[in-house]
Amino acid sequence: METHHLLSPEIVHFQGWRMSWWVIYWGRRKQQKWLICRVWRHVLHKGDIVIDATCGNGYDTLAMLKMVADESGSGRVYGIDIQIDALKNTSSLLDATVTQKEKELVKLFPICHSRMDEVVPENTAVRLVAFNLGYLPGGDKGIITISKTTLLALEAAKKMLISGGLISLVVYVGHPGGSEELDTVEAFASRLSVDSWICCEFQMLNRPLAPVLVFMFKR
Amino acid sequence: METHHLLSPEIVHFQGWRMSWWVIYWGRRKQQKWLICRVWRHVLHKGDIVIDATCGNGYDTLAMLKMVADESGSGRVYGIDIQIDALKNTSSLLDATVTQKEKELVKLFPICHSRMDEVVPENTAVRLVAFNLGYLPGGDKGIITISKTTLLALEAAKKMLISGGLISLVVYVGHPGGSEELDTVEAFASRLSVDSWICCEFQMLNRPLAPVLVFMFKR
Repeated sequence: METHHLLSPEIVHFQGWRMSWWVIYWGRRKQQKWLICRVWRHVLHKGDIVIDATCGNGYDTLAMLKMVADESGSGRVYGIDIQIDALKNTSSLLDATVTQKEKELVKLFPICHSRMDEVVPENTAVRLVAFNLGYLPGGDKGIITISKTTLLALEAAKKMLISGGLISLVVYVGHPGGSEELDTVEAFASRLSVDSWICCEFQMLNRPLAPVLVFMFKR
Repeated sequence: METHHLLSPEIVHFQGWRMSWWVIYWGRRKQQKWLICRVWRHVLHKGDIVIDATCGNGYDTLAMLKMVADESGSGRVYGIDIQIDALKNTSSLLDATVTQKEKELVKLFPICHSRMDEVVPENTAVRLVAFNLGYLPGGDKGIITISKTTLLALEAAKKMLISGGLISLVVYVGHPGGSEELDTVEAFASRLSVDSWICCEFQMLNRPLAPVLVFMFKR
Protein backbone atom coordinates (compact mmCIF):
# COMPACT_ATOMS: atom_id res chain seq x y z
CA MET A 1 0.00 0.00 0.00
CA GLU A 2 1.47 3.32 -1.04
CA THR A 3 1.72 5.96 1.61
CA HIS A 4 3.49 8.85 -0.07
CA HIS A 5 0.30 10.82 -0.63
CA LEU A 6 -0.26 10.88 3.09
CA LEU A 7 2.64 13.22 3.56
CA SER A 8 1.67 15.58 0.76
CA PRO A 9 1.20 19.28 1.69
CA GLU A 10 -2.53 18.91 1.19
CA ILE A 11 -2.70 16.19 3.80
CA VAL A 12 -0.24 17.81 6.18
CA HIS A 13 -2.47 20.88 6.06
CA PHE A 14 -5.18 18.74 7.53
CA GLN A 15 -2.95 17.50 10.31
CA GLY A 16 -4.49 20.23 12.48
CA TRP A 17 -7.50 19.67 14.64
CA ARG A 18 -9.74 19.49 11.58
CA MET A 19 -8.22 16.12 10.84
CA SER A 20 -9.95 14.75 13.86
CA TRP A 21 -12.55 12.88 11.87
CA TRP A 22 -15.37 13.27 14.30
CA VAL A 23 -15.06 17.01 13.87
CA ILE A 24 -14.68 16.71 10.13
CA TYR A 25 -17.82 14.68 10.11
CA TRP A 26 -20.11 17.20 11.76
CA GLY A 27 -22.20 17.36 8.69
CA ARG A 28 -20.67 20.05 6.51
CA ARG A 29 -20.89 18.47 3.12
CA LYS A 30 -17.53 19.83 2.02
CA GLN A 31 -15.74 18.28 4.95
CA GLN A 32 -17.65 15.06 4.60
CA LYS A 33 -16.56 14.93 0.98
CA TRP A 34 -12.96 15.35 2.04
CA LEU A 35 -13.31 12.52 4.52
CA ILE A 36 -14.71 10.16 1.90
CA CYS A 37 -11.98 11.04 -0.60
CA ARG A 38 -9.44 10.37 2.09
CA VAL A 39 -10.81 6.85 2.53
CA TRP A 40 -10.75 6.30 -1.23
CA ARG A 41 -7.14 7.44 -1.38
CA HIS A 42 -6.18 4.69 1.02
CA VAL A 43 -7.72 2.10 -1.25
CA LEU A 44 -7.00 3.38 -4.75
CA HIS A 45 -3.86 3.05 -6.84
CA LYS A 46 -2.98 4.57 -10.18
CA GLY A 47 -4.31 2.34 -12.92
CA ASP A 48 -7.23 1.02 -10.89
CA ILE A 49 -10.68 0.42 -12.30
CA VAL A 50 -13.51 2.05 -10.37
CA ILE A 51 -17.25 2.53 -10.69
CA ASP A 52 -19.16 5.67 -9.80
CA ALA A 53 -22.56 4.03 -9.57
CA THR A 54 -24.40 7.35 -9.16
CA CYS A 55 -22.60 10.11 -11.07
CA GLY A 56 -24.86 12.92 -9.93
CA ASN A 57 -23.13 16.12 -10.97
CA GLY A 58 -19.83 14.36 -11.53
CA TYR A 59 -17.73 15.55 -8.62
CA ASP A 60 -17.08 12.02 -7.39
CA THR A 61 -16.35 10.84 -10.93
CA LEU A 62 -13.76 13.59 -11.23
CA ALA A 63 -12.22 12.81 -7.84
CA MET A 64 -11.93 9.11 -8.72
CA LEU A 65 -10.47 9.86 -12.14
CA LYS A 66 -7.74 11.99 -10.60
CA MET A 67 -6.86 9.14 -8.26
CA VAL A 68 -6.65 6.35 -10.85
CA ALA A 69 -5.43 8.10 -14.02
CA ASP A 70 -1.71 8.13 -14.64
CA GLU A 71 0.53 9.26 -17.46
CA SER A 72 0.48 5.90 -19.19
CA GLY A 73 -3.26 6.32 -19.66
CA SER A 74 -4.23 3.37 -17.51
CA GLY A 75 -7.00 3.52 -14.98
CA ARG A 76 -10.68 3.51 -15.80
CA VAL A 77 -13.81 5.09 -14.34
CA TYR A 78 -17.20 3.65 -15.20
CA GLY A 79 -19.73 6.39 -14.53
CA ILE A 80 -23.37 5.40 -14.25
CA ASP A 81 -26.54 7.40 -13.72
CA ILE A 82 -30.12 6.78 -14.73
CA GLN A 83 -30.64 10.51 -15.39
CA ILE A 84 -29.26 11.83 -18.64
CA ASP A 85 -28.92 15.30 -17.09
CA ALA A 86 -26.55 13.86 -14.51
CA LEU A 87 -24.32 12.43 -17.21
CA LYS A 88 -24.41 15.73 -19.13
CA ASN A 89 -23.34 17.57 -15.98
CA THR A 90 -20.60 15.02 -15.38
CA SER A 91 -19.34 15.29 -18.93
CA SER A 92 -19.31 19.11 -18.76
CA LEU A 93 -17.43 19.04 -15.48
CA LEU A 94 -14.82 16.71 -16.94
CA ASP A 95 -14.48 18.89 -20.06
CA ALA A 96 -13.79 21.85 -17.82
CA THR A 97 -11.30 20.16 -15.52
CA VAL A 98 -9.35 17.32 -17.15
CA THR A 99 -7.44 16.68 -20.35
CA GLN A 100 -9.01 14.91 -23.28
CA LYS A 101 -6.70 11.97 -22.63
CA GLU A 102 -7.93 11.75 -19.05
CA LYS A 103 -11.53 12.11 -20.08
CA GLU A 104 -11.18 9.14 -22.40
CA LEU A 105 -10.60 6.99 -19.34
CA VAL A 106 -14.18 7.71 -18.22
CA LYS A 107 -17.00 5.68 -19.68
CA LEU A 108 -20.47 7.07 -19.00
CA PHE A 109 -23.64 4.98 -19.13
CA PRO A 110 -27.24 6.24 -18.78
CA ILE A 111 -28.59 3.21 -16.96
CA CYS A 112 -29.84 2.21 -13.53
CA HIS A 113 -27.03 1.41 -11.10
CA SER A 114 -28.49 -2.07 -10.65
CA ARG A 115 -27.34 -2.82 -14.20
CA MET A 116 -23.68 -1.98 -13.71
CA ASP A 117 -22.65 -5.54 -14.48
CA GLU A 118 -24.06 -5.12 -18.01
CA VAL A 119 -21.61 -2.36 -18.92
CA VAL A 120 -18.50 -3.34 -17.02
CA PRO A 121 -16.78 -6.24 -18.83
CA GLU A 122 -16.88 -9.59 -17.07
CA ASN A 123 -13.90 -10.37 -14.82
CA THR A 124 -12.94 -6.70 -14.57
CA ALA A 125 -10.93 -6.17 -11.37
CA VAL A 126 -12.93 -3.37 -9.75
CA ARG A 127 -11.26 -1.63 -6.79
CA LEU A 128 -14.03 0.78 -5.76
CA VAL A 129 -17.77 1.08 -6.25
CA ALA A 130 -19.18 4.32 -4.89
CA PHE A 131 -22.78 5.30 -4.35
CA ASN A 132 -24.58 8.50 -3.39
CA LEU A 133 -28.04 7.27 -2.56
CA GLY A 134 -30.95 9.68 -2.72
CA TYR A 135 -31.66 12.25 -5.42
CA LEU A 136 -29.58 14.31 -7.83
CA PRO A 137 -28.54 17.55 -6.07
CA GLY A 138 -30.22 20.39 -7.95
CA GLY A 139 -32.25 17.88 -10.00
CA ASP A 140 -35.73 16.40 -9.83
CA LYS A 141 -36.30 15.29 -6.25
CA GLY A 142 -39.00 12.97 -7.50
CA ILE A 143 -36.31 10.77 -9.07
CA ILE A 144 -34.61 8.87 -6.28
CA THR A 145 -32.68 5.67 -5.92
CA ILE A 146 -34.85 2.97 -4.40
CA SER A 147 -34.16 0.03 -2.15
CA LYS A 148 -34.91 -2.68 -4.67
CA THR A 149 -32.47 -1.51 -7.34
CA THR A 150 -29.90 -0.43 -4.75
CA LEU A 151 -29.87 -3.96 -3.37
CA LEU A 152 -29.34 -5.36 -6.87
CA ALA A 153 -26.54 -2.83 -7.39
CA LEU A 154 -24.87 -3.83 -4.12
CA GLU A 155 -25.04 -7.49 -5.09
CA ALA A 156 -23.45 -6.67 -8.45
CA ALA A 157 -20.76 -4.54 -6.78
CA LYS A 158 -20.00 -7.31 -4.31
CA LYS A 159 -19.37 -9.76 -7.14
CA MET A 160 -17.12 -7.42 -9.10
CA LEU A 161 -14.98 -6.13 -6.24
CA ILE A 162 -11.46 -7.45 -5.83
CA SER A 163 -9.74 -8.18 -2.54
CA GLY A 164 -8.56 -4.90 -1.02
CA GLY A 165 -11.47 -3.09 -2.66
CA LEU A 166 -14.21 -0.92 -1.21
CA ILE A 167 -17.92 -0.30 -1.56
CA SER A 168 -18.49 3.27 -0.38
CA LEU A 169 -21.91 4.76 0.25
CA VAL A 170 -23.33 8.12 1.24
CA VAL A 171 -26.94 7.49 2.15
CA TYR A 172 -29.24 10.51 2.24
CA VAL A 173 -32.13 9.87 4.58
CA GLY A 174 -34.04 13.15 4.57
CA HIS A 175 -36.48 12.25 1.79
CA PRO A 176 -39.34 9.72 1.59
CA GLY A 177 -37.84 6.25 1.20
CA GLY A 178 -34.44 7.39 2.46
CA SER A 179 -34.50 5.59 5.77
CA GLU A 180 -35.90 2.46 4.12
CA GLU A 181 -32.96 2.56 1.72
CA LEU A 182 -30.56 2.89 4.66
CA ASP A 183 -32.19 -0.17 6.24
CA THR A 184 -31.55 -2.06 3.01
CA VAL A 185 -27.89 -1.04 2.94
CA GLU A 186 -27.40 -1.91 6.61
CA ALA A 187 -29.06 -5.28 6.18
CA PHE A 188 -26.88 -6.03 3.16
CA ALA A 189 -23.71 -5.08 5.05
CA SER A 190 -24.69 -7.03 8.14
CA ARG A 191 -24.99 -10.21 6.07
CA LEU A 192 -21.44 -9.97 4.70
CA SER A 193 -19.00 -12.45 6.21
CA VAL A 194 -16.84 -10.93 8.90
CA ASP A 195 -13.95 -13.03 7.62
CA SER A 196 -14.03 -11.36 4.23
CA TRP A 197 -15.56 -7.94 4.87
CA ILE A 198 -15.14 -5.02 7.24
CA CYS A 199 -18.38 -3.05 7.26
CA CYS A 200 -18.76 0.11 9.27
CA GLU A 201 -21.20 2.96 9.56
CA PHE A 202 -20.79 6.56 10.67
CA GLN A 203 -23.69 8.77 11.57
CA MET A 204 -24.67 11.89 13.43
CA LEU A 205 -26.90 11.20 16.41
CA ASN A 206 -28.41 14.65 16.86
CA ARG A 207 -28.86 15.39 13.13
CA PRO A 208 -31.19 12.58 12.10
CA LEU A 209 -31.45 13.84 8.53
CA ALA A 210 -27.70 14.08 7.96
CA PRO A 211 -26.39 11.58 5.42
CA VAL A 212 -25.00 8.34 6.79
CA LEU A 213 -21.67 6.96 5.61
CA VAL A 214 -21.26 3.23 5.07
CA PHE A 215 -18.01 1.55 4.04
CA MET A 216 -17.68 -2.11 3.09
CA PHE A 217 -14.06 -3.11 2.72
CA LYS A 218 -13.24 -6.45 1.16
CA ARG A 219 -10.27 -8.05 2.89
CA MET B 1 -5.71 24.08 19.27
CA GLU B 2 -2.19 22.72 19.45
CA THR B 3 -1.10 20.59 16.57
CA HIS B 4 2.55 19.80 17.27
CA HIS B 5 1.80 16.33 18.61
CA LEU B 6 0.28 15.41 15.28
CA LEU B 7 3.65 15.50 13.65
CA SER B 8 5.41 13.48 16.32
CA PRO B 9 7.20 10.30 15.21
CA GLU B 10 4.52 8.24 16.91
CA ILE B 11 1.83 9.80 14.74
CA VAL B 12 3.93 9.86 11.58
CA HIS B 13 4.37 6.13 12.09
CA PHE B 14 0.63 5.84 11.72
CA GLN B 15 0.58 7.82 8.49
CA GLY B 16 0.60 4.49 6.69
CA TRP B 17 -2.53 2.72 5.64
CA ARG B 18 -3.29 1.83 9.22
CA MET B 19 -4.23 5.45 9.80
CA SER B 20 -7.24 4.97 7.64
CA TRP B 21 -9.71 4.94 10.47
CA TRP B 22 -12.14 2.52 8.95
CA VAL B 23 -9.38 -0.05 8.89
CA ILE B 24 -8.22 0.91 12.35
CA TYR B 25 -11.75 0.45 13.52
CA TRP B 26 -12.25 -3.12 12.40
CA GLY B 27 -12.72 -4.22 15.91
CA ARG B 28 -9.30 -5.04 17.23
CA ARG B 29 -9.46 -3.58 20.68
CA LYS B 30 -5.88 -2.32 20.56
CA GLN B 31 -6.51 -0.35 17.41
CA GLN B 32 -9.84 0.91 18.67
CA LYS B 33 -8.05 2.14 21.76
CA TRP B 34 -5.56 4.00 19.63
CA LEU B 35 -8.37 5.64 17.69
CA ILE B 36 -10.08 6.83 20.86
CA CYS B 37 -6.84 8.18 22.30
CA ARG B 38 -6.31 10.04 19.08
CA VAL B 39 -9.67 11.77 19.47
CA TRP B 40 -8.84 12.64 23.07
CA ARG B 41 -5.53 14.14 22.00
CA HIS B 42 -7.35 16.56 19.76
CA VAL B 43 -9.42 17.80 22.66
CA LEU B 44 -7.03 17.69 25.61
CA HIS B 45 -4.42 20.19 26.70
CA LYS B 46 -1.80 19.98 29.42
CA GLY B 47 -3.35 21.14 32.67
CA ASP B 48 -6.88 20.01 31.77
CA ILE B 49 -9.26 18.41 34.21
CA VAL B 50 -10.77 15.13 33.05
CA ILE B 51 -13.00 12.41 34.42
CA ASP B 52 -12.59 8.69 33.80
CA ALA B 53 -16.11 7.73 34.79
CA THR B 54 -15.41 3.99 34.58
CA CYS B 55 -11.79 3.27 35.53
CA GLY B 56 -11.92 -0.43 34.79
CA ASN B 57 -8.35 -1.63 34.91
CA GLY B 58 -6.97 1.90 34.65
CA TYR B 59 -5.60 2.00 31.12
CA ASP B 60 -7.78 4.96 30.16
CA THR B 61 -6.96 6.72 33.42
CA LEU B 62 -3.28 6.33 32.62
CA ALA B 63 -3.70 7.53 29.03
CA MET B 64 -5.61 10.61 30.18
CA LEU B 65 -3.09 11.37 32.90
CA LYS B 66 -0.24 11.34 30.39
CA MET B 67 -2.18 13.81 28.22
CA VAL B 68 -3.04 16.34 30.94
CA ALA B 69 -0.11 16.17 33.37
CA ASP B 70 2.73 18.61 32.84
CA GLU B 71 5.88 19.51 34.72
CA SER B 72 4.19 22.21 36.75
CA GLY B 73 1.98 19.56 38.26
CA SER B 74 -1.24 20.93 36.86
CA GLY B 75 -3.88 18.74 35.28
CA ARG B 76 -6.21 16.45 37.17
CA VAL B 77 -7.85 13.08 36.54
CA TYR B 78 -10.89 12.09 38.54
CA GLY B 79 -11.12 8.34 38.37
CA ILE B 80 -14.39 6.70 39.30
CA ASP B 81 -15.51 3.11 39.54
CA ILE B 82 -18.13 1.39 41.63
CA GLN B 83 -15.89 -1.70 41.99
CA ILE B 84 -13.10 -1.45 44.51
CA ASP B 85 -11.09 -4.03 42.53
CA ALA B 86 -11.12 -1.71 39.55
CA LEU B 87 -9.65 1.12 41.60
CA LYS B 88 -7.03 -1.23 43.06
CA ASN B 89 -6.03 -2.29 39.56
CA THR B 90 -5.92 1.33 38.44
CA SER B 91 -3.79 2.33 41.40
CA SER B 92 -1.37 -0.55 40.79
CA LEU B 93 -1.08 0.32 37.12
CA LEU B 94 -0.29 3.93 37.99
CA ASP B 95 2.29 2.86 40.59
CA ALA B 96 4.01 0.80 37.94
CA THR B 97 3.97 3.41 35.20
CA VAL B 98 4.02 7.00 36.47
CA THR B 99 5.93 9.07 39.00
CA GLN B 100 4.55 9.74 42.46
CA LYS B 101 4.07 13.38 41.50
CA GLU B 102 2.00 12.37 38.50
CA LYS B 103 0.00 9.89 40.50
CA GLU B 104 -0.97 12.64 42.92
CA LEU B 105 -2.87 14.28 40.10
CA VAL B 106 -5.24 11.31 40.04
CA LYS B 107 -8.11 11.20 42.51
CA LEU B 108 -9.86 7.84 42.75
CA PHE B 109 -13.39 7.40 44.06
CA PRO B 110 -15.21 4.09 44.67
CA ILE B 111 -18.67 5.32 43.69
CA CYS B 112 -21.23 4.88 40.93
CA HIS B 113 -20.49 7.03 37.88
CA SER B 114 -23.90 8.66 38.30
CA ARG B 115 -22.51 10.39 41.40
CA MET B 116 -19.53 12.03 39.73
CA ASP B 117 -20.85 15.48 40.56
CA GLU B 118 -20.51 14.65 44.26
CA VAL B 119 -16.75 14.23 44.07
CA VAL B 120 -15.76 16.75 41.45
CA PRO B 121 -15.87 20.25 42.99
CA GLU B 122 -18.64 22.52 41.73
CA ASN B 123 -17.73 24.76 38.77
CA THR B 124 -14.76 22.60 37.85
CA ALA B 125 -13.96 23.13 34.15
CA VAL B 126 -14.05 19.54 32.91
CA ARG B 127 -12.65 18.95 29.40
CA LEU B 128 -13.35 15.24 28.99
CA VAL B 129 -15.63 12.66 30.54
CA ALA B 130 -14.96 9.15 29.30
CA PHE B 131 -17.02 6.03 29.76
CA ASN B 132 -16.53 2.35 29.04
CA LEU B 133 -20.01 0.95 29.43
CA GLY B 134 -20.45 -2.71 30.19
CA TYR B 135 -18.48 -4.79 32.66
CA LEU B 136 -14.98 -4.77 34.10
CA PRO B 137 -12.70 -6.77 31.75
CA GLY B 138 -11.51 -9.76 33.74
CA GLY B 139 -13.94 -8.94 36.55
CA ASP B 140 -17.39 -10.06 37.64
CA LYS B 141 -19.57 -10.01 34.54
CA GLY B 142 -22.61 -9.81 36.81
CA ILE B 143 -21.62 -6.26 37.71
CA ILE B 144 -22.48 -4.05 34.76
CA THR B 145 -23.29 -0.42 34.21
CA ILE B 146 -27.01 0.06 33.73
CA SER B 147 -29.11 2.46 31.71
CA LYS B 148 -30.61 4.32 34.65
CA THR B 149 -27.34 5.31 36.28
CA THR B 150 -25.62 5.85 32.95
CA LEU B 151 -28.28 8.38 32.03
CA LEU B 152 -27.74 10.20 35.34
CA ALA B 153 -23.99 10.11 34.71
CA LEU B 154 -24.44 11.56 31.22
CA GLU B 155 -26.62 14.35 32.62
CA ALA B 156 -23.96 15.13 35.22
CA ALA B 157 -21.21 15.06 32.59
CA LYS B 158 -23.20 17.37 30.33
CA LYS B 159 -23.47 19.96 33.11
CA MET B 160 -19.79 19.84 34.00
CA LEU B 161 -18.33 19.91 30.52
CA ILE B 162 -16.81 23.13 29.21
CA SER B 163 -17.07 24.41 25.66
CA GLY B 164 -14.58 22.51 23.51
CA GLY B 165 -14.98 19.46 25.73
CA LEU B 166 -15.94 15.90 24.93
CA ILE B 167 -18.04 13.08 26.31
CA SER B 168 -16.50 9.87 24.95
CA LEU B 169 -18.15 6.47 25.22
CA VAL B 170 -17.29 2.91 24.33
CA VAL B 171 -20.52 0.96 24.62
CA TYR B 172 -20.22 -2.81 24.87
CA VAL B 173 -23.36 -4.45 23.60
CA GLY B 174 -22.59 -8.15 23.84
CA HIS B 175 -24.06 -8.74 27.30
CA PRO B 176 -27.66 -8.63 28.63
CA GLY B 177 -28.72 -4.99 28.96
CA GLY B 178 -25.97 -3.83 26.61
CA SER B 179 -28.16 -2.87 23.69
CA GLU B 180 -30.66 -1.20 26.03
CA GLU B 181 -27.80 0.88 27.40
CA LEU B 182 -26.78 1.83 23.85
CA ASP B 183 -30.37 2.91 23.20
CA THR B 184 -30.17 5.13 26.28
CA VAL B 185 -26.91 6.71 25.12
CA GLU B 186 -28.23 7.28 21.60
CA ALA B 187 -31.44 8.82 22.89
CA PHE B 188 -29.47 11.11 25.19
CA ALA B 189 -27.20 12.22 22.34
CA SER B 190 -30.08 12.73 19.92
CA ARG B 191 -31.70 15.19 22.32
CA LEU B 192 -28.63 17.43 22.53
CA SER B 193 -28.98 20.70 20.64
CA VAL B 194 -27.28 20.63 17.28
CA ASP B 195 -26.21 24.24 17.86
CA SER B 196 -24.17 23.30 20.90
CA TRP B 197 -23.23 19.66 20.38
CA ILE B 198 -21.77 17.45 17.68
CA CYS B 199 -22.81 13.87 18.40
CA CYS B 200 -21.65 11.00 16.26
CA GLU B 201 -21.62 7.23 16.38
CA PHE B 202 -19.35 4.64 14.81
CA GLN B 203 -20.25 1.01 14.58
CA MET B 204 -19.47 -2.18 12.75
CA LEU B 205 -22.38 -3.44 10.68
CA ASN B 206 -21.35 -7.08 10.32
CA ARG B 207 -20.08 -7.50 13.89
CA PRO B 208 -23.20 -6.76 15.91
CA LEU B 209 -21.51 -7.46 19.23
CA ALA B 210 -18.53 -5.17 18.59
CA PRO B 211 -18.47 -2.15 20.90
CA VAL B 212 -20.00 1.02 19.54
CA LEU B 213 -18.18 4.35 19.82
CA VAL B 214 -20.13 7.51 20.63
CA PHE B 215 -18.62 10.97 20.81
CA MET B 216 -20.45 14.07 22.03
CA PHE B 217 -18.41 17.19 21.40
CA LYS B 218 -19.53 20.45 23.00
CA ARG B 219 -18.96 23.38 20.65
